[in-house]
Amino acid sequence: MRTVIGVMGSGAVLDRHAEEDAYLLGRLIAEQGWALLNGGRACGVMDATARGAHDAGGLVVGVLPDDDASFATPHLDIAIVTGMRDARNYINALSSQVVVALPGKAGTLSEVAFALNAGRTVVAVGWDVGPALGDYAAAGKLLRVETPEEAVMAVSAALAKDAGWRH
Amino acid sequence: MRTVIGVMGSGAVLDRHAEEDAYLLGRLIAEQGWALLNGGRACGVMDATARGAHDAGGLVVGVLPDDDASFATPHLDIAIVTGMRDARNYINALSSQVVVALPGKAGTLSEVAFALNAGRTVVAVGWDVGPALGDYAAAGKLLRVETPEEAVMAVSAALAKDAGWRH
Amino acid sequence: MRTVIGVMGSGAVLDRHAEEDAYLLGRLIAEQGWALLNGGRACGVMDATARGAHDAGGLVVGVLPDDDASFATPHLDIAIVTGMRDARNYINALSSQVVVALPGKAGTLSEVAFALNAGRTVVAVGWDVGPALGDYAAAGKLLRVETPEEAVMAVSAALAKDAGWRH
Amino acid sequence: MRTVIGVMGSGAVLDRHAEEDAYLLGRLIAEQGWALLNGGRACGVMDATARGAHDAGGLVVGVLPDDDASFATPHLDIAIVTGMRDARNYINALSSQVVVALPGKAGTLSEVAFALNAGRTVVAVGWDVGPALGDYAAAGKLLRVETPEEAVMAVSAALAKDAGWRH
Repeated sequence: MRTVIGVMGSGAVLDRHAEEDAYLLGRLIAEQGWALLNGGRACGVMDATARGAHDAGGLVVGVLPDDDASFATPHLDIAIVTGMRDARNYINALSSQVVVALPGKAGTLSEVAFALNAGRTVVAVGWDVGPALGDYAAAGKLLRVETPEEAVMAVSAALAKDAGWRH
Repeated sequence: MRTVIGVMGSGAVLDRHAEEDAYLLGRLIAEQGWALLNGGRACGVMDATARGAHDAGGLVVGVLPDDDASFATPHLDIAIVTGMRDARNYINALSSQVVVALPGKAGTLSEVAFALNAGRTVVAVGWDVGPALGDYAAAGKLLRVETPEEAVMAVSAALAKDAGWRH
Repeated sequence: MRTVIGVMGSGAVLDRHAEEDAYLLGRLIAEQGWALLNGGRACGVMDATARGAHDAGGLVVGVLPDDDASFATPHLDIAIVTGMRDARNYINALSSQVVVALPGKAGTLSEVAFALNAGRTVVAVGWDVGPALGDYAAAGKLLRVETPEEAVMAVSAALAKDAGWRH
Repeated sequence: MRTVIGVMGSGAVLDRHAEEDAYLLGRLIAEQGWALLNGGRACGVMDATARGAHDAGGLVVGVLPDDDASFATPHLDIAIVTGMRDARNYINALSSQVVVALPGKAGTLSEVAFALNAGRTVVAVGWDVGPALGDYAAAGKLLRVETPEEAVMAVSAALAKDAGWRH
């Protein structure tokens, strides 16, 4: 079974810097041999990370909120069509062994919250998810890094820790 | 159709002050003639608000994450059994005309995020939901109050504003 | 907690006889003191049963597939807004202590299947749900009756049996 | 984006003939270059089709009802973890361009019903899904075949028809 890393973040139009970060994060995830999972739409962090992972030859899974794949980014290998609107955010969280959260607002925050609640490690890249999740930071399940490269190192460490725990 | 007000908040054991606030909020909601909707379990804010609303003769709807009603608070009138774990948080948000958020952690935060994303007004009582939702505060959709009484006044105002908008 | 009886069936325009049956079934359910749960929309069996139960002073809960209550029948007391399209059919099944199935097609059949899979008794009124569910009929969990009156008697018997089982 | 073919069917222990049919169907789907999607668990049709597709070098996606992958068949490439119990059956249906239904009971029937309701072609292999879905058979959306080989030919024809329709 493939290791699946989720990347969440804003669905809005990204500025050039955020676009490059998201694209690079997608590339780096694919280069590690991990499958990339995101929300699947042709916009924002979803599109840029999928494109990055796809360009690096990775496997990309998009979990769509819609009733069909009309709004899917073309850089997906597999579209999971949920028809469930934002309730699919829960599936994004559960299906990811580790979640990387690029800056976002309400939707991204719901995914961060679900992932933490389900025991997943969350790596926030360059933003503050807020004081309500401070206990998770104290427990080492919510990490803060500044770059895509640091995010990938944090994911690796979290996967190694989880593997140690399970054996 | 009844006006439905959602109350979200911690499912953990409450201290005496938090318990009294939650109970009072439930009472006040029922006294306004609003139906109370929450997550339905026999613990924390869910149990205390349901008990308050029930004692005041209100209608209480619990939207449960479980496969049956085994963990439901006895103070419900109607148990909605979703079997969907935390994905039911999305239903809590959509089904509430206004959401009141007592202090909580990841689960509560997901409900606040979903409610705001769906255009609902959220009234946070005595806690800070964090900077990632700052745009909603600036737009007047995320309000901060300190007491159950103030929360009910804020809900009334939000309902009046929504009604004005729709006519 | 109220006893909740689900009624499922076609969302299409009903002929006069089917409309009268659905309306009567809603009335009879309310007259027994049971809350009525259905799919909540302003059409077909949903609208007619809600109207019947409402006219008899009953409590009516509609579990909507939509993102808001725009398509809800006006005869609801409580609208549960799921945003989940047909996935809400699972919630309809789980939330009903017994399910009554008036004639329907794919949507109704999914609700019958979910209810049986979750251990609920299903009472089919005047139609054949098909051979794939034959084991449930043999086990006494899938019943066939011909009229709303017979359906209500079958529901009563199923509730009594469940109550006996639980004590 | 990969063409995704869903295979649904019983989760119970299969007799030798049913096991061989399911395994062969998985193989044939992979040999066509299609990704296989099923319910992901290590039992019945899910396990046998995943094993067949895996042995033929195919890509296998399992959409699990559970909160984690503890019950997943080892022959998956990607586990989608929904935590939504049978509500995931709706996702199975929507995510499949065509659904092949091996013999099953309530769960399988719910997937057949959802797929037809969402406009997908369903190919039933060697069983009768019942009279309630007769309109779909009459409209050519519900097909009946007897062997895995015939099922794959029917899927090919349905994909060609859909492609024609869309252009």
